[in-house]
Amino acid sequence: MKIALDGMGGDFAPKNNIEGAIDALSNPTLEILLVGIQEELEQQLSNYDFDKQRITVIPSEGAIADSEQPAIAVKRKVNASINVCSGLVKKGVASGFLSCGNSGATFASATGMFGLFEGLRKPCVGAAIFGFAPETLILDLGLNVDPTPDQLVDFAALGVSQVKIIYGLEDPTVALLSNGSESNKGNRLVKESFELFHKSNLNFKGNIEGHDIASGKVNVVVCDGFTGNILLKLIEGIGNEIFNYLRCEIKDQRYEQIIQNISNKTNLMREFGGGPIIGINGIAVIGHGASSPKAISNGINSVASLANKDYINQSKNELIKLRESFL
Amino acid sequence: MKIALDGMGGDFAPKNNIEGAIDALSNPTLEILLVGIQEELEQQLSNYDFDKQRITVIPSEGAIADSEQPAIAVKRKVNASINVCSGLVKKGVASGFLSCGNSGATFASATGMFGLFEGLRKPCVGAAIFGFAPETLILDLGLNVDPTPDQLVDFAALGVSQVKIIYGLEDPTVALLSNGSESNKGNRLVKESFELFHKSNLNFKGNIEGHDIASGKVNVVVCDGFTGNILLKLIEGIGNEIFNYLRCEIKDQRYEQIIQNISNKTNLMREFGGGPIIGINGIAVIGHGASSPKAISNGINSVASLANKDYINQSKNELIKLRESFL
Repeated sequence: MKIALDGMGGDFAPKNNIEGAIDALSNPTLEILLVGIQEELEQQLSNYDFDKQRITVIPSEGAIADSEQPAIAVKRKVNASINVCSGLVKKGVASGFLSCGNSGATFASATGMFGLFEGLRKPCVGAAIFGFAPETLILDLGLNVDPTPDQLVDFAALGVSQVKIIYGLEDPTVALLSNGSESNKGNRLVKESFELFHKSNLNFKGNIEGHDIASGKVNVVVCDGFTGNILLKLIEGIGNEIFNYLRCEIKDQRYEQIIQNISNKTNLMREFGGGPIIGINGIAVIGHGASSPKAISNGINSVASLANKDYINQSKNELIKLRESFL
Repeated sequence: MKIALDGMGGDFAPKNNIEGAIDALSNPTLEILLVGIQEELEQQLSNYDFDKQRITVIPSEGAIADSEQPAIAVKRKVNASINVCSGLVKKGVASGFLSCGNSGATFASATGMFGLFEGLRKPCVGAAIFGFAPETLILDLGLNVDPTPDQLVDFAALGVSQVKIIYGLEDPTVALLSNGSESNKGNRLVKESFELFHKSNLNFKGNIEGHDIASGKVNVVVCDGFTGNILLKLIEGIGNEIFNYLRCEIKDQRYEQIIQNISNKTNLMREFGGGPIIGINGIAVIGHGASSPKAISNGINSVASLANKDYINQSKNELIKLRESFL
């Protein structure tokens, strides 16, 4: 299976990208299409010892910087590395791609190139955000700041297919995130959505509260992307402060790994190399800008695993099944 | 100074309430009006040794249970302990009151009895929610799930007066909580509010993100009560999971207090006995249902400290000053 990797995206590109690609070769089924500035990549690759047949450099005309306005940059730089990656997937050359670069540009490029599932207005992003509740996916995490109730129901279906595929769960539980567990609690959006969720064929457990995310009460937590994005970053921030406090106060080698785990489990994006854009007709995984080689290797394997499990078609079918339950 | 204490409210009432009241007597300026079922309170008080002149039992006709619908219960049980407490403040007998009982009923009773500041539609609640950022107040924490931009600006002014009084800060910084720090980031509410904040005389620092709450970037974080409530409970939940993990993994007496601090610093409400209802013409402090005697004693001292600092008038003036900046 061929996976495209944006060689230019990320805070430590192309070094970490190259090392991540080489690490990913330990999966014998993979070939990497490493996309970026040809000379630079080839020169750096020459420092490493690996199976030359399994990493191919695909030239791009530069890259989109983090500081660039995504939608504009994607249109203007048609041969930038992110665009070349999505092109390789679109043409069927690669089974999916990973970029740790400008995430807005990855969204714009992948969504424009692959197209949205029928009836969706925008893709969404979802992920487990707290490592002590690893089978609790939360979405949307930032793309849809003012969604409608219909959109939230669609996100739920997409989340369900996601956890079925990733965690192998049979009938994932779903809840709406709210300011109280009672069915009459919530802001306007949640109140309007509750009845729709209730009527659907989702395994709907009602409203849950903030602490229920931490304890992993359900598998799919649905919220607007404004709230989700704040939660994601709050957990990273809380984890960081607690980690620093413990590292200062407990200088004891026996407990070093335990304390490190606090950091890892509150920054899953950095740890596991990101998640796929949900709701588009192709596999594009967004990685954390600060990804380590291991995170990049994990991200490449995520792409492969989604492709192996026919992720796109499964997600589409879940959405169709849900919508039929409203007919 | 006389402070009214709801003797019947809280998970461990009246035992913790009585012990908290007695502990609060270590502040020599205080007298406690302990409100509740006379026989029960007097009988339990007889087990303790304290200055009988400084705790007076004020009889009520029962109490409002946690399970009761607040607005209805407050109207129906006119002589329940919470209502008697707000009555004592309204009549000027007590300088303020603390209840750890049904918080909705405390809101309803205090708001109905004291009345709102001019032009406010609803009171709000604000507090520091993360102990590693103790001078960062966030509001609203749950009363206003769909506020307007005007309301958010009012909350900012009320938050500013709060931190001036509590932390003694001269010119507190203020920010809007958003999904990105850029001025064009946010949901509809935040985008519509940004310009109002910008034009005001607030020391406005723009939008901040989730992790900035954890690092204490500003003194007053303004958000809708839906988001605030979820954040508050998420932090409690995250803290609880991390605390349990560390307690299991680090069984070492030397580090016990450090690990306990994680729990304390992520559950400030339980720790410090709650915060005042903001925007009403009288002092009413809401305590956590699970308050310890020490938390209740702290809560009583919070009431006293707010009264000493002329909290109500200071808050009103802050609001008037802010509104004048728009003329």
